[in-house]
Amino acid sequence: MPGHILLGGEGPLALVRLSHPGRLNAMSRAMWRELRDVFEKIQSGAPWRCVVVQGEGGNFCAGGDISEYPDFRFNEAHLRDFHENDVWGALAAMLACDVPVLACIEGACMGAGLEIASCCDIRIAAESATFGAPIAKLGFPMAPREAQLVVRAAGEATAREMLLEAAVLPASEMKSRGFLNRVAPDADVRAQAWAAAQRVAALSPQAARLNKQTLRALAPQPGARDAHGREGGPAIGGAYHYADSAEHREGIAAFLDKRKPVFQGTDK
Amino acid sequence: MPGHILLGGEGPLALVRLSHPGRLNAMSRAMWRELRDVFEKIQSGAPWRCVVVQGEGGNFCAGGDISEYPDFRFNEAHLRDFHENDVWGALAAMLACDVPVLACIEGACMGAGLEIASCCDIRIAAESATFGAPIAKLGFPMAPREAQLVVRAAGEATAREMLLEAAVLPASEMKSRGFLNRVAPDADVRAQAWAAAQRVAALSPQAARLNKQTLRALAPQPGARDAHGREGGPAIGGAYHYADSAEHREGIAAFLDKRKPVFQGTDK
Amino acid sequence: MPGHILLGGEGPLALVRLSHPGRLNAMSRAMWRELRDVFEKIQSGAPWRCVVVQGEGGNFCAGGDISEYPDFRFNEAHLRDFHENDVWGALAAMLACDVPVLACIEGACMGAGLEIASCCDIRIAAESATFGAPIAKLGFPMAPREAQLVVRAAGEATAREMLLEAAVLPASEMKSRGFLNRVAPDADVRAQAWAAAQRVAALSPQAARLNKQTLRALAPQPGARDAHGREGGPAIGGAYHYADSAEHREGIAAFLDKRKPVFQGTDK
Repeated sequence: MPGHILLGGEGPLALVRLSHPGRLNAMSRAMWRELRDVFEKIQSGAPWRCVVVQGEGGNFCAGGDISEYPDFRFNEAHLRDFHENDVWGALAAMLACDVPVLACIEGACMGAGLEIASCCDIRIAAESATFGAPIAKLGFPMAPREAQLVVRAAGEATAREMLLEAAVLPASEMKSRGFLNRVAPDADVRAQAWAAAQRVAALSPQAARLNKQTLRALAPQPGARDAHGREGGPAIGGAYHYADSAEHREGIAAFLDKRKPVFQGTDK
Repeated sequence: MPGHILLGGEGPLALVRLSHPGRLNAMSRAMWRELRDVFEKIQSGAPWRCVVVQGEGGNFCAGGDISEYPDFRFNEAHLRDFHENDVWGALAAMLACDVPVLACIEGACMGAGLEIASCCDIRIAAESATFGAPIAKLGFPMAPREAQLVVRAAGEATAREMLLEAAVLPASEMKSRGFLNRVAPDADVRAQAWAAAQRVAALSPQAARLNKQTLRALAPQPGARDAHGREGGPAIGGAYHYADSAEHREGIAAFLDKRKPVFQGTDK
Repeated sequence: MPGHILLGGEGPLALVRLSHPGRLNAMSRAMWRELRDVFEKIQSGAPWRCVVVQGEGGNFCAGGDISEYPDFRFNEAHLRDFHENDVWGALAAMLACDVPVLACIEGACMGAGLEIASCCDIRIAAESATFGAPIAKLGFPMAPREAQLVVRAAGEATAREMLLEAAVLPASEMKSRGFLNRVAPDADVRAQAWAAAQRVAALSPQAARLNKQTLRALAPQPGARDAHGREGGPAIGGAYHYADSAEHREGIAAFLDKRKPVFQGTDK
């Protein structure tokens, strides 16, 4: 089962479901490409008034699909292509969506899941949801564009704690840190998210579109140019030189072998 | 009664009162111009050491004076003049004030009120105060400079929730989101704000002025240039093209007719 | 006793101790220079995997060593040299450190202490710790680079409250405002900080280094250039003209005389 991104809907509400059974909806490369396609379809197609993003089977998304990583992560060009085209292609399509996007978060919201949630306008989570980006256990850093996204949504202190300590935080904590707009009882979170989507859909779509365009202009993403023609965001330059490093290989190998990684600290 | 901005004071403390009886201090165009005059007077005149801004009659400010909107909002040039000159003229004068400004917030703090509060250095609110910017009900977006201001003071997640879902949030929530410095019992909020103003006034006015100038340079407003001569903030460009749109007309008409607006979503 | 910065360690964990007995670890000029040396040594030397910064004797750091201020603060060139070379030299060395830095904060964390804590990646504090920057009592503002640092770590609303009202805030409040990652019982804070440092040290050092470099690029400090060759941060220009002013002299004289300062507000 490679996993899929499913687009459904009801009246003016679109429902985007992350679905990778047995893998807590971990994002495969194919799913990243489908996520981009789905948001490009929403942006250009039917007159949706609100999009709800949620995961199948009680989890939002536990991260990337690590079983695929040995196929491409240890080659710098392939790694760059994965992050800059597959991952960023999908996240940029979400950010470019003029329709309000609401995240309904249950269970694990880690790594790729945290990034997808960071692209949503409003985030509502179940009490038992958990959040993090413990990729330092896998021996690799967050890509620059993705780190910028998480810093903006979760704050720099939380981003540092997740990236440097591999901290995993509960919904209550993510609410107090400003990442979540609301926390709901587990049994109620889907109903609350759907009710919020209906409130969004009853408002002026033009106002929503123009507000989203203004807020996007206020926080330019890398590769975009700001109102004064200046490019924003972090440099990508040498961001993927680490592809063939010992720690990167060790982190991913240890995960796949279900053992604790040992990092020698000898990479430069 | 057109509403007025009243300037009083006691010793080194200036008191600015938003006053529009019977309209929860909704800001008319005349009030925006008076607010600018008052802050230009404070900046250039008597050696005030702290300014307290509060509303008359138990509310801070419920928004703009919608009864005036049909007169000018549906013409792009007039709409631009309203936002860029009347509204921004007043908010820019508040931001340019070198004297510390403290908001004492009771009751409704919506739209224009939220923007005025966002220009204050320290915000103290009564427990029962409520906050929002539900203008998507009126079919129009927040102007770019004003949106930037609210994002900086309330955070992007809160700005999106207010603009896209028309969320109205209580003081406790605005405290936890970092917009409010303090929440006080309703009966006590004026006394607490006044005591804080006295503490501010006992400190070095020079330190306050220099600190405010530094903090202003760190967060340049649109139209201002940063330390390196670069203009900051969002583009204004087509921000007011929506003036004559169907949703804009419907939102304001419905409000004035006291009925629920119906947005067709056909505006481009 | 001039005070010292002590560097020790245990395995992969470096321990940096702020030590100025009898002065709540107030930072003397010599200590600022030592702090820079210590972080330059950490950055270039032994393969540390996490640095813990803490104060000796139950306090983190109560501010600058005011007893030294009459020697240099009233001369603009000397004042500039102090802030731009001594203070900023140390803080910039902390920010440039590629090893994760964890602050373990007990007791007073004021002024210089708040700035040092703001340069750490993860902040853990004891319940009874207190935070502020009440330098307006001393008649002077925060230097621009230092203000930018505090705004980024503590938020603009908190920075304004501390600088303009001389507010002193407890750990619980600094947690809710996003400055602190965790608050621990006083008796437990060192153990919790050390345990966190061990978790950090078990992760990939390469991932930590690359993440820190990316996050640094996302928030350029003054003097640094961003990915597009543009200098970031506030202008320094006239920031130290106030050196010889009446309020600056009065604030420091009053503190040293143990009396309440009287600010005339006549400085321009």
